[in-house]
Amino acid sequence: MADRKARTDRLVVVGGDAAGMSAASKVRRMDPDREIVVFERGEHTSYAACGMPYLVTGEVKSPEKLIARKPEQFREKYKIDVRTRHEVISIDPDALRVHARDLASGERIEMAYGDLLLATGASPVRPDLPGLDLDGVMGLSSLSSGLNLLERVRAAPPGRVVVVGGGYIGIEMAEVFAEIGSDVHLIDMAPQVMTTMDQEMAAPIQEAMERVGVTLSLGEALVGVEATPIGSVEAVRTDHGRYPADLVILGMGVKPNSKLAREAGLELGPKGSISVNERMQTSRPEIWAAGDCADSLNLVTGERTWIALGTVANKHGLVAGTNLGGGEATFPGVIGTAITRFEDLEIARTGLSEREATADGWSVESRTITSRTRAGYMPGSEEIQVKLVAGTDGRLLGGQIVGGLGSGKRIDTIATAITAGMSVEDLVWMDLAYAPPFSPVWDPVQMAARQFLS
Amino acid sequence: MADRKARTDRLVVVGGDAAGMSAASKVRRMDPDREIVVFERGEHTSYAACGMPYLVTGEVKSPEKLIARKPEQFREKYKIDVRTRHEVISIDPDALRVHARDLASGERIEMAYGDLLLATGASPVRPDLPGLDLDGVMGLSSLSSGLNLLERVRAAPPGRVVVVGGGYIGIEMAEVFAEIGSDVHLIDMAPQVMTTMDQEMAAPIQEAMERVGVTLSLGEALVGVEATPIGSVEAVRTDHGRYPADLVILGMGVKPNSKLAREAGLELGPKGSISVNERMQTSRPEIWAAGDCADSLNLVTGERTWIALGTVANKHGLVAGTNLGGGEATFPGVIGTAITRFEDLEIARTGLSEREATADGWSVESRTITSRTRAGYMPGSEEIQVKLVAGTDGRLLGGQIVGGLGSGKRIDTIATAITAGMSVEDLVWMDLAYAPPFSPVWDPVQMAARQFLS
Repeated sequence: MADRKARTDRLVVVGGDAAGMSAASKVRRMDPDREIVVFERGEHTSYAACGMPYLVTGEVKSPEKLIARKPEQFREKYKIDVRTRHEVISIDPDALRVHARDLASGERIEMAYGDLLLATGASPVRPDLPGLDLDGVMGLSSLSSGLNLLERVRAAPPGRVVVVGGGYIGIEMAEVFAEIGSDVHLIDMAPQVMTTMDQEMAAPIQEAMERVGVTLSLGEALVGVEATPIGSVEAVRTDHGRYPADLVILGMGVKPNSKLAREAGLELGPKGSISVNERMQTSRPEIWAAGDCADSLNLVTGERTWIALGTVANKHGLVAGTNLGGGEATFPGVIGTAITRFEDLEIARTGLSEREATADGWSVESRTITSRTRAGYMPGSEEIQVKLVAGTDGRLLGGQIVGGLGSGKRIDTIATAITAGMSVEDLVWMDLAYAPPFSPVWDPVQMAARQFLS
Repeated sequence: MADRKARTDRLVVVGGDAAGMSAASKVRRMDPDREIVVFERGEHTSYAACGMPYLVTGEVKSPEKLIARKPEQFREKYKIDVRTRHEVISIDPDALRVHARDLASGERIEMAYGDLLLATGASPVRPDLPGLDLDGVMGLSSLSSGLNLLERVRAAPPGRVVVVGGGYIGIEMAEVFAEIGSDVHLIDMAPQVMTTMDQEMAAPIQEAMERVGVTLSLGEALVGVEATPIGSVEAVRTDHGRYPADLVILGMGVKPNSKLAREAGLELGPKGSISVNERMQTSRPEIWAAGDCADSLNLVTGERTWIALGTVANKHGLVAGTNLGGGEATFPGVIGTAITRFEDLEIARTGLSEREATADGWSVESRTITSRTRAGYMPGSEEIQVKLVAGTDGRLLGGQIVGGLGSGKRIDTIATAITAGMSVEDLVWMDLAYAPPFSPVWDPVQMAARQFLS
């Protein structure tokens, strides 16, 4: 260990996206003088990864709109020494030093830290299967990959697209290509899309996908991608069939970037994420982690969990930044709230699904209702389905929503109730907002809760 | 008191709207044999009073759509003896009898009850001022009054409309007449519209009203309505001026219909509402009250309060019905959640406003932010303002929202957090749903909560 007196006060951040930059900015706001160095492997900082599908749809007009702040802005306005195209290759936790490489010049850098924040994010899962490195096999993991995809689509809209994976990225990409007129085929190993939802709640999503012409091949595992003699994508092969393709989109989930942490001997959590306490410190108190690489407490199960989402990353960053800036903040945890859409169908979930709860050994009850987003007699009233999952003691454990405009964000009511430890009966009597353009007199969430009462 | 053995088991309900009919239906579902008689003064049962403004706008195509169930349906399907055009004129609580009058025949009826449920609703406030009984002075309190207004508007759209009162009905009616091209003038005694909101949150509503040509005269008290020689409306006079009018809409609030209860010696609550316990029993256990005539507990202040809203009425009805049907239900209370819109501007509030809290002697802090309903780079992202009110200990006490599409129902997150006794810091870290088409990465509600943290 370096001599305490000689120890630098420098904060070194590895990763310049949501968690890293929000932490760095928070430290700067709290401490105008501390030296802050950020190493970012890519060219961009603080870009809105979640917005990339909408860049491809054209709803977002230019990639610049997805960049909240550029490296220059952090350098000039925040006096943060942001070094893009710099990769940290190892940490020496005893010497309190990182080793980095300037990807442009190849130069190696060694730098001492007082505190080190790992905000290394997550990377797409790419199984070791033949053909996944072909030019026409693409993901959507970084701004660069989004731009590559956009460029390709603009140059020549692909005739046949196979999307591998029916999660958030998969269904968003299926929507994108269905909209531009491609022949879209989605395959997933699971017997349904959106495995974070229970099967009957995934059914309306699948119907909506099939309605716009997406072909679903569920319960099929990817075996590989076949190439033409000149090396472009020809077909996707699964354990059930072979599907011709001009373009393959991989949406097979992500895994935490925790190699640096693992090699430095830090404790790891679920799925190889970096284990942190509620202040976002790793097993070494001077090394912190935040964002898609770090774990969180699941407030419903009481177990550690790993969730890679922009909201969580921003909160992690704010907590780490507050503590690194000399304040006090603790991150209570997550409950697994998520939202997306397929065309006009809004899809949201929070807490435990019935499948998750049952697999975890909970005894649960569930109720599902179909209602309307507004009073039935109002124009714009759309169908909404709400499923609630509760323990046998009535404690609310989870919720899922699928429906038209105005459905999705109702999940926040359920998320708040779960966080507060409320019962389904508490939800029934809650004073939620009603007027005909906004809700039936019993909000659909409460209507679902009422089904638990005798 | 009637001999206990001879006491009838009959349930008599006074009032056939939301609270009365939902209670009666619940009793019937729990008890197929109990005799249930409902006296309703008007011609309709279970109509959606809150939908009437949208009948006038034409968004609701026919008045039938506002009637959830007709008297015949209750009679035939539910075996509930619904007697419309019957007015209960007195209660003899010692003899357990009601006296009613058939308004069609004039016949008087005396009927014994085992339990009596008062669901007499609320009536518009009509101050004793000259000219308020003129033909062109209208309210929007019953389905009949809505139909009258609709008929009048269809026959000849009024050129000049004065709306008296800037509350929910007032601003909805101002919208209606502005849309059909009338010259609309809104007056209110208060220095702002929507006095359930704090002044700075009412400001954007006023701006939206003025933008579509509504003239606001605030801080002016109604003095009377002047008639032409042939007895039609000519002008509205206030303590500040005289405003020509072809039609006057009164939206001066409502008062509980508690005359029967008062005359029967029942305990009264705030604003003359009928005092009930959490099972919806009045001060005499065999007399129950529910809906707009009954009071509720305010869960924030711990005081009894009186709120006339459809959601509360339906919950009251369900609780009363469950208990009258032999089950057990208790109504915890209300926190004053409400929502409306002016054109595309969504308006919602819950808990205590800063003004209410201060007037009640609380020491509070408040924060107001302006954000977006969706990620700023997404189409359809609209401005939203959120104000939060918290105690000096950080406990969340109230919230107000004004903004574009997707703003209003976010109040439910705040309402749920208040009900659960959460702090503003709890709200900051909550796992709310985020995806670019639904929210910025920090939901506006959380962004407001963040302002309380250092």
